[in-house]
Amino acid sequence: MLFDVMLAKKFKKILDKRLPIVKWLPRYKLKDSVSDMMGGFTVGITMIPQALAYASVAGLPPQYGLYSALIGSFVYIFLGTCKELSIGPTAVIALLTSSYTHRTNPDMAVLLCFLSGCVELLCGIFNLGFLVQFVSLPVVAGFNSAAAIITATSQLKKIFGLQFDSENCLETWRKLVENIHKYNLGDVILGVSCIVVLLSLRRLKYVKIPYDKENPKAGRKRALKKVLRFIAMGRNALVVIVCAAVAYALKKKGDVPFSLAGNIDPGMPQAEVPPFSTTFGNQTYSFIEMCEYLSSGIAIVPIVSTIGNIAIAKAFAHGVIIDSTQEMIALGTCNIVGSFFHSLPIAGSLSRSAVSNASGIRTQMGGLYVGILVILSLSLLTPYFYFIPEATLASVIICSVIFMVEVRMIKPIWGSNKRDLIPAFATFLACLFIAVELGIVIGIVVDVIFLLYFSARPRVLVEKKAILGDLEYILITPSSDLLFPAIDFVREIVAKAGISKHQDKAVVVNCKHMYRADFTAAQGIQDLLQDFRKRNRHVIFHSMRSGVAKMIGRVSAAEFLCSSSGEELTQILTDLRAAPLGLDQESLQIEGYKTLPEEPVLYEAHM
Amino acid sequence: MLFDVMLAKKFKKILDKRLPIVKWLPRYKLKDSVSDMMGGFTVGITMIPQALAYASVAGLPPQYGLYSALIGSFVYIFLGTCKELSIGPTAVIALLTSSYTHRTNPDMAVLLCFLSGCVELLCGIFNLGFLVQFVSLPVVAGFNSAAAIITATSQLKKIFGLQFDSENCLETWRKLVENIHKYNLGDVILGVSCIVVLLSLRRLKYVKIPYDKENPKAGRKRALKKVLRFIAMGRNALVVIVCAAVAYALKKKGDVPFSLAGNIDPGMPQAEVPPFSTTFGNQTYSFIEMCEYLSSGIAIVPIVSTIGNIAIAKAFAHGVIIDSTQEMIALGTCNIVGSFFHSLPIAGSLSRSAVSNASGIRTQMGGLYVGILVILSLSLLTPYFYFIPEATLASVIICSVIFMVEVRMIKPIWGSNKRDLIPAFATFLACLFIAVELGIVIGIVVDVIFLLYFSARPRVLVEKKAILGDLEYILITPSSDLLFPAIDFVREIVAKAGISKHQDKAVVVNCKHMYRADFTAAQGIQDLLQDFRKRNRHVIFHSMRSGVAKMIGRVSAAEFLCSSSGEELTQILTDLRAAPLGLDQESLQIEGYKTLPEEPVLYEAHM
Repeated sequence: MLFDVMLAKKFKKILDKRLPIVKWLPRYKLKDSVSDMMGGFTVGITMIPQALAYASVAGLPPQYGLYSALIGSFVYIFLGTCKELSIGPTAVIALLTSSYTHRTNPDMAVLLCFLSGCVELLCGIFNLGFLVQFVSLPVVAGFNSAAAIITATSQLKKIFGLQFDSENCLETWRKLVENIHKYNLGDVILGVSCIVVLLSLRRLKYVKIPYDKENPKAGRKRALKKVLRFIAMGRNALVVIVCAAVAYALKKKGDVPFSLAGNIDPGMPQAEVPPFSTTFGNQTYSFIEMCEYLSSGIAIVPIVSTIGNIAIAKAFAHGVIIDSTQEMIALGTCNIVGSFFHSLPIAGSLSRSAVSNASGIRTQMGGLYVGILVILSLSLLTPYFYFIPEATLASVIICSVIFMVEVRMIKPIWGSNKRDLIPAFATFLACLFIAVELGIVIGIVVDVIFLLYFSARPRVLVEKKAILGDLEYILITPSSDLLFPAIDFVREIVAKAGISKHQDKAVVVNCKHMYRADFTAAQGIQDLLQDFRKRNRHVIFHSMRSGVAKMIGRVSAAEFLCSSSGEELTQILTDLRAAPLGLDQESLQIEGYKTLPEEPVLYEAHM
Repeated sequence: MLFDVMLAKKFKKILDKRLPIVKWLPRYKLKDSVSDMMGGFTVGITMIPQALAYASVAGLPPQYGLYSALIGSFVYIFLGTCKELSIGPTAVIALLTSSYTHRTNPDMAVLLCFLSGCVELLCGIFNLGFLVQFVSLPVVAGFNSAAAIITATSQLKKIFGLQFDSENCLETWRKLVENIHKYNLGDVILGVSCIVVLLSLRRLKYVKIPYDKENPKAGRKRALKKVLRFIAMGRNALVVIVCAAVAYALKKKGDVPFSLAGNIDPGMPQAEVPPFSTTFGNQTYSFIEMCEYLSSGIAIVPIVSTIGNIAIAKAFAHGVIIDSTQEMIALGTCNIVGSFFHSLPIAGSLSRSAVSNASGIRTQMGGLYVGILVILSLSLLTPYFYFIPEATLASVIICSVIFMVEVRMIKPIWGSNKRDLIPAFATFLACLFIAVELGIVIGIVVDVIFLLYFSARPRVLVEKKAILGDLEYILITPSSDLLFPAIDFVREIVAKAGISKHQDKAVVVNCKHMYRADFTAAQGIQDLLQDFRKRNRHVIFHSMRSGVAKMIGRVSAAEFLCSSSGEELTQILTDLRAAPLGLDQESLQIEGYKTLPEEPVLYEAHM
């Protein structure tokens, strides 16, 4: 009976944690629902043009963007922890998808979605979320900046009404310059106007309308401010609708002077198992061959998606600790379920999440209205999507991504830690000039090399004239754990101190920073002890943790001097002074020194 | 004038360091020369049979072994720092060479020698020796053990007089079992006898002959002991000479019941530029293609050679600090010069260095006599090498390598740090069952993963009831630097402490172990400060180094509380108690706290 209650409690706890809707739905009120509806629709009208546009970034027909916008919005209601997070197609993930599935068919993108979801879900379940912590902020900044530039570049040709295929950013620029004379005036005028309008509308939210609460016109001004903000948030949809209407009107009259999105398959996506084999370029690919084709994408897409999602969740956390595991499970499930409905890989979008936050969304239920809007689009609006000009979609993308170029990060990085600019620029340049999917890997590798270098070169403080009472000695304090890459370095410093001119002084190694050691380090210390013994000198290990001392003791039976308190050290140093050279280790032991000390008191703990 | 003297002094110092012969040759005496001659010849007669045998391990004609033994011995006289170190062909490097040049021709092995030498020399010049510190002892032990087993396995077929080709260790065992019935009785008898004799002779050095100095027979007994030790050291040569003599006698009478080494090209190797293109299997390979064929060998062979060389130099260092850079330069030069004389990749051999040590060598000049012996062999003895039985050479190899299986390492590793058995066994098994050249890479990767995991998960000490005078607070002490992989983990712990039940207590982060930080960490601390500010709680950073504090300050202008001494902390805590919640940061600043502290006094330094 008691057991049952405990079990039920435990189950409730897990449910609360892994199905967050259980926690907030019971407290859901009508007022919340109104806010969520308003917020959801606002996010939706931002999402739909983005979805159409990002599908083209991924190199797929526009309807795939809408399919991607659909499922994530619903699934995240149940599993998500961050009410502002808007999951769906994003510029970066679309770009990555295109780099892995270039010159194939939508099946590859859908399988990538499924596999990414599986990786995310498994990493969530097995608590491997810490892996994304190996991607530092400078690498993320470099990657995002490069991705933004590449994405914007890829859209420039549509602004100029050009048509060519290119493999990478450099080639795009080259072809753009080569073909610039073939520009289509209609597209250029429309594209540039759209960009100008979008950037101007974006500024609307910053417009300050001073009003006096006492003033009878205050209400109107407040209303005006709300309208302005709504226009700023809904600017993508607004521009797309106006341009499509113009195109529709022109088409009725005769010819349209710019290219249009063209036919979009109407209707909801068919639910089916993700494609585990496919055919393109006259060749059939089995599941294994498809995986080989996607190669590192199966790891990189989940990493980038997870980093993005967790970063957004943290940004809107309001001081609450984010459950990264749950975020990964939610993201993974969204992708897996999405892949059954022809979705591209999806992730949280920072720009839409900001809109979501600004529109006053109250719970994850907002996703419901995003989803409803997408369903309405798919079933009713696709005929009208035909008239959306390509240059307009391109300008939507360009205006979304240019603020992702994180120039503003350079100054704080330069100010705080110049070294971090190396991984940042390595990532940025490698993404731009080698390949976007390789750039992030290169950045991580550069970062890890620094980490490893630090682990091989800990800071070691050497004080040649340390004094305790009237005793002078050489004090050496390594700043970190003693693991195999560092031991030779530390050993050499200690050995050098031991053969310095101060032949009469004992060498004391302060081990207070050493929490961990390994076999190689233990062996290194034994070698060090032997060096000292051969030269008839003494080395004392101070504040060594008992675990580390035992480790060293088990490598070889040779005894060594340890002190665990200032008094003990004084005693040993005094005795060594009495018999400075060639003091027999055994005699010391007989005199009652601990050679394997108890766990030293962490006497710094209370300062 | 003064400048000239200084320059000359500096030049002398560099010369002493980079051309060690300059240091010891002027003090070289006749007595040294006698010892060196004796020692050199002892090493030489160990080296020559090994050289012939290891050439076959590398899959090359026997004379290549002698070529490899030649140049290293001479070059090391000038550049080497360790008088005992015997440079030449070794079992492990021969095995690695065979794994990279299998089914090609000697040109590939010679080019590998040249390239390895270049890598070693460059790493020496650019001070990249620390890279080998990333290979831990457990990985080395696992690799050596596996290499020994693979080498011994590869020789077993010669003991049984079988002939087959195999790709790896498993296949060798399978084919051995399949073909065992075809054994040649003569080879088996000879091989097994040789092994028994070699192992018995090896025991001779341990034989104790008690003698009384007063006894008139003492001199004879001492001489006997010397003879026994010499026989133990020269056992390889002895067994080879006896067996070759037997074979020669049998051949004169008629047929030999076991296979012989066969013809060996006589004469010195032609000096020529290493082969930068070659032809085998009806295909010509350019330099680039040869490099592609050798692939990771160009990195792995130098790493393994360097590890071996430095380990040997350390083992015989007699308490002196080894100049790893100089060892790498010496090793690199030996390989580069060797490659002009058709040498395989060479390195220091532990077994021969032990012989060298036991034979009482005094300086690097011993190498001269090794070299002379090799020249004599090449010019005079090759006709006699024809008669060396293959089974005898195989038994020489087997008896050299079986003691490299480091079973005795398991116990101390288990005792000191069980976790280290994982890289050890990962390396061992991967070498045996995947490929020897891949095994060591896998071992290094496993080790590095542990390192990275530690850097992401530092130990953090949380004391919920830390007391300072009558003030209670929460004290959090991370055990290491604050770099990007760890910051989220630490931040979460601090944040959790901040939302614990002890709402009234301040949280103090003790930064005494933090020597380094980076931009990601600085940003993480800013986020943490924001979390606390949102919850109206306080976090104080104690003993933060000024570099780290400045770094954090430059990420964002927000101020934060720092204390650099116990008194300062008491003051801040007292003030916070007076205004526990919602204390304005600014008001604190006005009251005169340092928010960017001076470098804190390292007050633990003198204990």
